[in-house]
Amino acid sequence: MRVDGDRVNRRLAALRQFGGTPAGGTHRLGYSDEDKAARGLVAAWMREAGLAPETDVAGNLVARRGGGESTLKPVVFGSHVDSVPDGGNYDGNVGVVAAIEVAHVLRDRGVTLRHPIEVVVWANEEGGLFGSRAVSGQFEAAELAHQTASGRTVGDGIAFLGGDPSRIAAVRRTRGDIAAYLELHIEQGGRLEAERVDIGVVEGIVGIRQWDVTVTGVSNHAGTTPMDKRQDAMLAAARFIDMVHRVVTSSPGRQVGTVGRLQARPGAPNVIPGTVVCSLELRDLDEGAILRLYDRIRAEASRIGSATGTTFAYEPLHVNTPAPSDPEMRRVIDRAARGLGLSTMVMPSGAGHDAQAMAQLGPIGMIFIPSVGGISHSPKEFSHPADITNGANVLLAAVLAADAGR
Amino acid sequence: MRVDGDRVNRRLAALRQFGGTPAGGTHRLGYSDEDKAARGLVAAWMREAGLAPETDVAGNLVARRGGGESTLKPVVFGSHVDSVPDGGNYDGNVGVVAAIEVAHVLRDRGVTLRHPIEVVVWANEEGGLFGSRAVSGQFEAAELAHQTASGRTVGDGIAFLGGDPSRIAAVRRTRGDIAAYLELHIEQGGRLEAERVDIGVVEGIVGIRQWDVTVTGVSNHAGTTPMDKRQDAMLAAARFIDMVHRVVTSSPGRQVGTVGRLQARPGAPNVIPGTVVCSLELRDLDEGAILRLYDRIRAEASRIGSATGTTFAYEPLHVNTPAPSDPEMRRVIDRAARGLGLSTMVMPSGAGHDAQAMAQLGPIGMIFIPSVGGISHSPKEFSHPADITNGANVLLAAVLAADAGR
Repeated sequence: MRVDGDRVNRRLAALRQFGGTPAGGTHRLGYSDEDKAARGLVAAWMREAGLAPETDVAGNLVARRGGGESTLKPVVFGSHVDSVPDGGNYDGNVGVVAAIEVAHVLRDRGVTLRHPIEVVVWANEEGGLFGSRAVSGQFEAAELAHQTASGRTVGDGIAFLGGDPSRIAAVRRTRGDIAAYLELHIEQGGRLEAERVDIGVVEGIVGIRQWDVTVTGVSNHAGTTPMDKRQDAMLAAARFIDMVHRVVTSSPGRQVGTVGRLQARPGAPNVIPGTVVCSLELRDLDEGAILRLYDRIRAEASRIGSATGTTFAYEPLHVNTPAPSDPEMRRVIDRAARGLGLSTMVMPSGAGHDAQAMAQLGPIGMIFIPSVGGISHSPKEFSHPADITNGANVLLAAVLAADAGR
Repeated sequence: MRVDGDRVNRRLAALRQFGGTPAGGTHRLGYSDEDKAARGLVAAWMREAGLAPETDVAGNLVARRGGGESTLKPVVFGSHVDSVPDGGNYDGNVGVVAAIEVAHVLRDRGVTLRHPIEVVVWANEEGGLFGSRAVSGQFEAAELAHQTASGRTVGDGIAFLGGDPSRIAAVRRTRGDIAAYLELHIEQGGRLEAERVDIGVVEGIVGIRQWDVTVTGVSNHAGTTPMDKRQDAMLAAARFIDMVHRVVTSSPGRQVGTVGRLQARPGAPNVIPGTVVCSLELRDLDEGAILRLYDRIRAEASRIGSATGTTFAYEPLHVNTPAPSDPEMRRVIDRAARGLGLSTMVMPSGAGHDAQAMAQLGPIGMIFIPSVGGISHSPKEFSHPADITNGANVLLAAVLAADAGR
């Protein structure tokens, strides 16, 4: 059994009509008009596949088909069609068209699985996994009032898509409510391409911790303060950033550390900065490894503070706990790929995905295909049609294997 | 002959009524209502000293008294009463009250100098030496339209103070139009206090060069881009800042280098910055030394670029050429101070002053008194009354010596 690769890639191209940009990418913010319009076409494809799509109260587009054994929980698969601002054409979309294709092929071949299946288009993934977190019980009612990039609040956005924010708690599921969750996605990094591997078997979605780091020195006149009398918060922050890079790269592993934002005050060319606030982000599959890195960074920052007459303070901004994939799902995906003659490698996902929310409910598995140049969240995002077809075929085989095995 | 130290310090305190802040400092922006009001009181003190103050077309408050020899050019002395935002009570003000005091004492003692004297309160020093640059021919007509911190444009501000911006070119003097320019000022640094010296004999006002430095890497996903695949503009900028500090401090001398402003783009905690724009400022008395530092910095930055996959580009922002003081004026000030039993040291001015504009017109001399803690441009700016009196006495003696010697 194989997917129709032409149909998959044709549908992927068709989605560009919703928010396609002159630069060749897609601007389709979660809860936007373009998002809703794209979901309209996606729902039509679901119906073509013999599914009956509905919008749940959280705004997720869900299409269910019953299985042969009434006591079994569903095998769920899908992704999202919303994009970052001025994003690409593959992130999310690939997983959605492939998921519908899997249901389409099963219908065409007259295959009824043991488990029910659910094909899902999650609402507003890029804004913060709002749809999948509502289902997995990680959504707080207060978030309904949050403003999103679309201009709509989360609550208004959910209603706009056809959901019912006043009843959002009803969408929540609990652990054991799903048999498995599978998601095909582009890698968004360059490892598969660099190592010429067809399929990434995701070992888990990394945990993320972010802090605001405040470096406090003494603001002073840049002309009259000799170099050896300065307590320069910018110099201390610079050494901090270099040190973070050194600490993160000084041990083997796939951990990453990033300082992406920095503000120096007062921020004039002729004034020694007295305060610098910068972000620190650490990601790893192992929560303990993140915390050990953080401890080393704090210890080294304290030495930088002593040397520069400055102090460092840390305020937690954001925590995402790591979401390991299920070992059996990894074996299922790996076998499915190898059965199709495709090479595989096990790798973490450095990016967040709806699968990390679904990991609260049951075993998850993710399938990665190569991203050319490792570029993502950019109009230059690209994956080869043949790789997309491979990914859809692996998803199909993995769904069949998950259905047989559980 | 001695100044009346009580009167000098009393008047200094009286100026605080114009823009005094709850924090104990002064907020008296050039061209502001507070600035104009303070100049009203200063003009009254000038009249008490037997002078006839006038506002020139550039908004400078100038009080002239004729000398005994009609062919001689004037000895000019003064400073400014405008402040930086939330500044202190001494920067500029000390030089103004001392200059008036000198004229006052000369009148009281019935002393007529050989040269005419001019006591000047320069307009909007802190905003960019507007008044003194108009006199020295470094003011561009286009600057009249510039917005200033007071809310008024330069042109409107000049008119507000009683000047005539449409005739501003008429205020311009040429080299040789003055016999000498002398200015008493607080040090704004901590050297005199640290070395327990009474009077600084300024060897010159340092040159300043500022650049915008643009570091270009590749913006990418902070989760999916391994550490060894990054072209992180923030990491490169951090190494640049640390390197600037190392290069500037690696040779003896009083040169300083500062990175005071930095912007990272896109500037999100979860995105590797693709672009960083930061300022670079170098100051030294020797223009050649500034340029040699800049060459070394560029060479080292190029190595940082190679190591990080980034490039560095430089755009000149601002150039102030160094303004050495006149050797004879230095000797005059040094002898005047020693004659009063005060200790002296020769030192550069790391800050800019109206004297640097006046160096275009004739010999300049500057007298520094200690700033407690080296703090300036802050409500905590403080100089001891006894030091202020010392400074005023040195100014008086230096004016007499300059009058005798030229």
